[in-house]
Amino acid sequence: MNGKFIVVEGLEGAGKSSAIASITGHLQAKGISVVNVREPGGTPLAENLRELVKRDWDERLTAETELLLMYASRSQLVENVIRPALAQGAWVLADRHDLSSRAYQGGGRQLGDEKLQQLKQLVLGDFNPDLTLILDVSPEIGLERARQRGQLDRIEQENLEFFERTRRRYLEIAASEPRIEVINAEASLKRVHQDLLQCVENQLFT
Amino acid sequence: MNGKFIVVEGLEGAGKSSAIASITGHLQAKGISVVNVREPGGTPLAENLRELVKRDWDERLTAETELLLMYASRSQLVENVIRPALAQGAWVLADRHDLSSRAYQGGGRQLGDEKLQQLKQLVLGDFNPDLTLILDVSPEIGLERARQRGQLDRIEQENLEFFERTRRRYLEIAASEPRIEVINAEASLKRVHQDLLQCVENQLFT
Repeated sequence: MNGKFIVVEGLEGAGKSSAIASITGHLQAKGISVVNVREPGGTPLAENLRELVKRDWDERLTAETELLLMYASRSQLVENVIRPALAQGAWVLADRHDLSSRAYQGGGRQLGDEKLQQLKQLVLGDFNPDLTLILDVSPEIGLERARQRGQLDRIEQENLEFFERTRRRYLEIAASEPRIEVINAEASLKRVHQDLLQCVENQLFT
Repeated sequence: MNGKFIVVEGLEGAGKSSAIASITGHLQAKGISVVNVREPGGTPLAENLRELVKRDWDERLTAETELLLMYASRSQLVENVIRPALAQGAWVLADRHDLSSRAYQGGGRQLGDEKLQQLKQLVLGDFNPDLTLILDVSPEIGLERARQRGQLDRIEQENLEFFERTRRRYLEIAASEPRIEVINAEASLKRVHQDLLQCVENQLFT
């Protein structure tokens, strides 16, 4: 039997890593084998692309290039890691996936959702997560947490409006798609993890 | 006044470099300033992508990844080099451009021309060369010439059927688009260069 594909999404500093650790533990306690991946990255070529897309370049990196590199990385990860793991019955838990591109490049960079959906179809066809969890946090709070963690990369250095557009697009998409859930990530850590695990239970185990 | 954008296309070993040298000399003799570029590549990031796409990877490089990296490289080159050069009145002479993707990834890798045209529109919009010259050579002759030049890269190691599909797609597209010309590259070098310069004269100076 195929495994399930769960994605955790959200702005910088939303608490994705800790959410992923919590869900991983919850699933493993049920005897489920869990493969953790992150985007961009997850294969040798994809990690190379991750470094290129986060680096500060002297030349202007076009919004289209950023988008194409994200999808190139995603194609490698889906075909070489995610699909094979699911086929072996493992569950895959991803730190970001397709929805990040729709929110960041589609919303933040204003490429628009229609272009994004076209490209998604072209690269991934009908491959989709079973459940996507958005950790919703205001950019002010998220970026402050991210700054405390250390140096910000090229994308994290964008202005507040960029992240507000990104957050808005996350919420717009979530409102119209049933397999995407929004979690209030400004609540206490305990509450956030309760909400996350309840979503996983309701959506995938009932 | 904007410069003109000329592209030289063809299989490995078709004689693109020598054709480009000949056209460059011809234009310079008219007092035209010529910028030479090659794809993939031509900016620091694009050259990085060139290296990644030609490297032999342990993981499978999907046809989609190959395609997306070509377009990422192209977006950087068009926005950061080609458009600015044309705006300054220089002519740009490119060793490969969009038509290579339509022929190699669309034809050779069988992704189909519809997908390719969608992606082109998404990344480049209506930006198009003023003239594209295809140096047409059979894969047997072209690859033999390429082998004599040295080690073949990841794409050049494909089988003969791949290059036959690529050549066929080149010719199909040329047959339906007016700003694409086919030159018989199996003729004598002198004849090939005569044909090339005549095409340039007819299409861009009359």
